[in-house]
Amino acid sequence: MGGYFITFEGGEGAGKTTVLHTVTEKLRQNGYDVLATREPGGIKISEKIRQIILDPLHTEMEEHTEALLYAAARSQHFAEKIVPALKRDKIVLCDRFIDSSLVYQGYARGLGMNEVLKINQFAVGDCMPDLTLFFDIEPKKGLERIAANKDREQNRLDLENLAFHEQVYQAYHILTERFPERIQTIDAAQNLESVEQEALDRILSLLKK
Amino acid sequence: MGGYFITFEGGEGAGKTTVLHTVTEKLRQNGYDVLATREPGGIKISEKIRQIILDPLHTEMEEHTEALLYAAARSQHFAEKIVPALKRDKIVLCDRFIDSSLVYQGYARGLGMNEVLKINQFAVGDCMPDLTLFFDIEPKKGLERIAANKDREQNRLDLENLAFHEQVYQAYHILTERFPERIQTIDAAQNLESVEQEALDRILSLLKK
Repeated sequence: MGGYFITFEGGEGAGKTTVLHTVTEKLRQNGYDVLATREPGGIKISEKIRQIILDPLHTEMEEHTEALLYAAARSQHFAEKIVPALKRDKIVLCDRFIDSSLVYQGYARGLGMNEVLKINQFAVGDCMPDLTLFFDIEPKKGLERIAANKDREQNRLDLENLAFHEQVYQAYHILTERFPERIQTIDAAQNLESVEQEALDRILSLLKK
Repeated sequence: MGGYFITFEGGEGAGKTTVLHTVTEKLRQNGYDVLATREPGGIKISEKIRQIILDPLHTEMEEHTEALLYAAARSQHFAEKIVPALKRDKIVLCDRFIDSSLVYQGYARGLGMNEVLKINQFAVGDCMPDLTLFFDIEPKKGLERIAANKDREQNRLDLENLAFHEQVYQAYHILTERFPERIQTIDAAQNLESVEQEALDRILSLLKK
């Protein structure tokens, strides 16, 4: 496959979704062919799977079930949307990917990062991103940002307590140490313009290699 | 966990579902506390997952997605229904389990039996059945039985061609060789009464150990 596969990661309120949209626009202005996506990404089967995961009534959902459903939604979105774009040499920017599952299910929920990695490798045929940008912000600050934004839709995950988000944060740092060549950290506590510029610079530096 | 976990396996039309019901009744008449189940087994989340898998409109479903969805539905059914029953020392008879996935997804669809085993071990925390009965019938004969039964609901899997079912049959035989202590073969081409008696005898022999 040609193209470049770049993922955006970070805790709640790190600003990665906003940055992803700005960077997409700037790359397009520079003449690059970009696909911006996030799971379930309009993929019918993945959307249906995510509805099951995020339904607030499903409080009985077992944690292994949840992890397998995330992997299933990922598998379909990857096959239907990301792989065809990479084959057409596009730059694919994806808002959250396997690292989110390693962090949320593998570490914070205690299923084991290696165990969760296995089911996700199955989901995407071992195809990992060329570059992952980790937007680094203290959980407390991130959650305050979310609380201040009344337009943002709340879901089951936002309702977890602070201790959970602290674990997520810790796990991202474990991953940056484990995959130093793939994951680059960006200080997301800076002002938005600086974060956007830094993200754009990192991506352009990959594209010009 | 106490109890006994026994699974019924075989290709389409092997009669295992009919036999499972008869054996359940006979065990109950003998005073045993039996739970007869099959995925999704009335478990709300598993039912919703199975609706996604079996929807005939989902022709674009990727095979890895399908395998992960089966594992997810299994995980929830196992945690909500099978584990609590085993903890109450029940005899659990389950119509199809992990072997079906190894055979259908792993072998016949070519995803790899070991790969599919990994995601399913994740789903059930490595808890394999105490005994598996494999109802052995030539695929052609099994499909003829189904075609003769107008009451039976058709689904996407029934529509696969004979070559696919031949592969399923071959894979079951690989499993009986790989797990000779767990899987026992019953000749399902016999008349129904003989098949039922044989299944009951195998189970009683396990319970009386």
